[in-house]
Amino acid sequence: MSNRPDIHISEVGPRDGLQSLRQTMATPAKLAWIDALHAAGLREIEVGSFVPAALLPQLADSAELVRHARGLAGLTVLALVPNLRGAQAALAAGVHKLTLPLSVSAAHSLANVRRTPAQMLEELRSVAALRRERAPGVGLEVGLSTAFGCTLQGRVDEDEVIRLAVQAAAAGADEVGLSDTSGMADPAQVRRLFTRLRAELGARAGAAHLHNTRGLGLANCLAAFDVGVRSFDASLAGLGGCPYAPGASGNVVTEDLVFMFEAMGLRTGVDLERLLAARAPLRAGLPGEPLYGMLAEAGLPKGFVAQQAAGHV
Amino acid sequence: MSNRPDIHISEVGPRDGLQSLRQTMATPAKLAWIDALHAAGLREIEVGSFVPAALLPQLADSAELVRHARGLAGLTVLALVPNLRGAQAALAAGVHKLTLPLSVSAAHSLANVRRTPAQMLEELRSVAALRRERAPGVGLEVGLSTAFGCTLQGRVDEDEVIRLAVQAAAAGADEVGLSDTSGMADPAQVRRLFTRLRAELGARAGAAHLHNTRGLGLANCLAAFDVGVRSFDASLAGLGGCPYAPGASGNVVTEDLVFMFEAMGLRTGVDLERLLAARAPLRAGLPGEPLYGMLAEAGLPKGFVAQQAAGHV
Repeated sequence: MSNRPDIHISEVGPRDGLQSLRQTMATPAKLAWIDALHAAGLREIEVGSFVPAALLPQLADSAELVRHARGLAGLTVLALVPNLRGAQAALAAGVHKLTLPLSVSAAHSLANVRRTPAQMLEELRSVAALRRERAPGVGLEVGLSTAFGCTLQGRVDEDEVIRLAVQAAAAGADEVGLSDTSGMADPAQVRRLFTRLRAELGARAGAAHLHNTRGLGLANCLAAFDVGVRSFDASLAGLGGCPYAPGASGNVVTEDLVFMFEAMGLRTGVDLERLLAARAPLRAGLPGEPLYGMLAEAGLPKGFVAQQAAGHV
Repeated sequence: MSNRPDIHISEVGPRDGLQSLRQTMATPAKLAWIDALHAAGLREIEVGSFVPAALLPQLADSAELVRHARGLAGLTVLALVPNLRGAQAALAAGVHKLTLPLSVSAAHSLANVRRTPAQMLEELRSVAALRRERAPGVGLEVGLSTAFGCTLQGRVDEDEVIRLAVQAAAAGADEVGLSDTSGMADPAQVRRLFTRLRAELGARAGAAHLHNTRGLGLANCLAAFDVGVRSFDASLAGLGGCPYAPGASGNVVTEDLVFMFEAMGLRTGVDLERLLAARAPLRAGLPGEPLYGMLAEAGLPKGFVAQQAAGHV
């Protein structure tokens, strides 16, 4: 029997979760949180973002987090880079994998990274060249932002999403995933787009990055799973969210997502009790911040862990 | 083109939602809430329960609610009856449809209605006989409680669920649905059980009554939809829940469920803006009670209603 989990979860809380908050989590609190996430069995964590500290003071300690996280056994340390300069800094800090956001919506792309999608493809080519020369062992993934709709431009053309995914793969990304940046995806659309993405890119079709803005997060993950997706982004306590939907929670809640898959009898490699325990350092580091998650509210069903251990779940 | 919706939603808030609360909603507030639910386009509402008022004082006004709801155009007025006496009272009040709960778990059955599942089947036969003689036009459905697991007894045997469903249909129920009373269902199990239920009962396979206790409500509804289920119970603002999971929200949130299906391009017959507006009389009638629902928090995506009207959703 393989030890490889059925489902790969990439925890994005320390980057995607923290970047939209007003308060900045102190570095020691982040380190304790990352340690707790790792102790729960998560094997990929997006620890930060290599952008100018003036733009995102919440993530100014990303290099320090990367250095620490590299010491955690078996962990893939991931960081977001918006451009070549960010990639240089991330590689210098020692990340294992880079993720570059590429908005399908031109309006969102300009607002987010001040570049058009075509300009971001150019940036991607530069980052891919850098990676090839300097760090061929480092991963490079692209997440297509606003793939399911955009708060600024409205509907996003599905053909355009697939075209850009193919271009991003050709430009050098190892994998290209789809992101529901503004929480507009529905299960039918998720199935259509990931089916097409997988048909075009095969094994280079990347993760599903889905939000829970309107409560459809897990249903959308299930829809993606149904068409073959096995790699999911999620955020502990559902931290994150779209600045255009104030008060709405953001990313899919890691605890609830892991519970769903484990309850279905699929292996995520994550220990649910330890994962729930990882909310404590988060809570301590972000006083007053609303935390989401239904599993944390209800608790695991009685006997669930014992049944898991006996292979009966 | 048929006017028949693709998806049938049965709103259970006034019964299932209110029965587990400490406070009792005043009758005029309930009437205003039921009117708002009807105005949103819901065409089946479970308005109350015909049990002794001493047991459930929250629902003591059920007969009055039935009489009022019968005046609302096109509405199927549903009430829960635990036994023959309840059915007599419900028919006297003028309900259009009876729903009788039948627990698969003997432990839950005894705790809930002080009868074993076998005794409840006997009760169902009596109710079916009464309906046949006195009110052949009235519907009679059975919901199999704890079909996906039981907080008291733990795992529930799936063969036993299907056996009991077949017995309930034979005993005279028009339809037999499955209820996740304690919020333990997962999508794989939902697909297995509803697939078997539909194979055994065909058109007499009834509604999916799923809870959101651990956040899987919509994913479970999607799973049921995928295997052919088109009839769903839901509760506005997610009211309800299992008394054994304190603090956990209960039923699937009607607003979020309707949004999911409408976003998928399916027709529910429900106007989402009016449905969200129906939270106001609920809020007014239940001061201080926690209300759930992600759509209410985030709002509809910009332009959603216009796109719906244009047939572009």
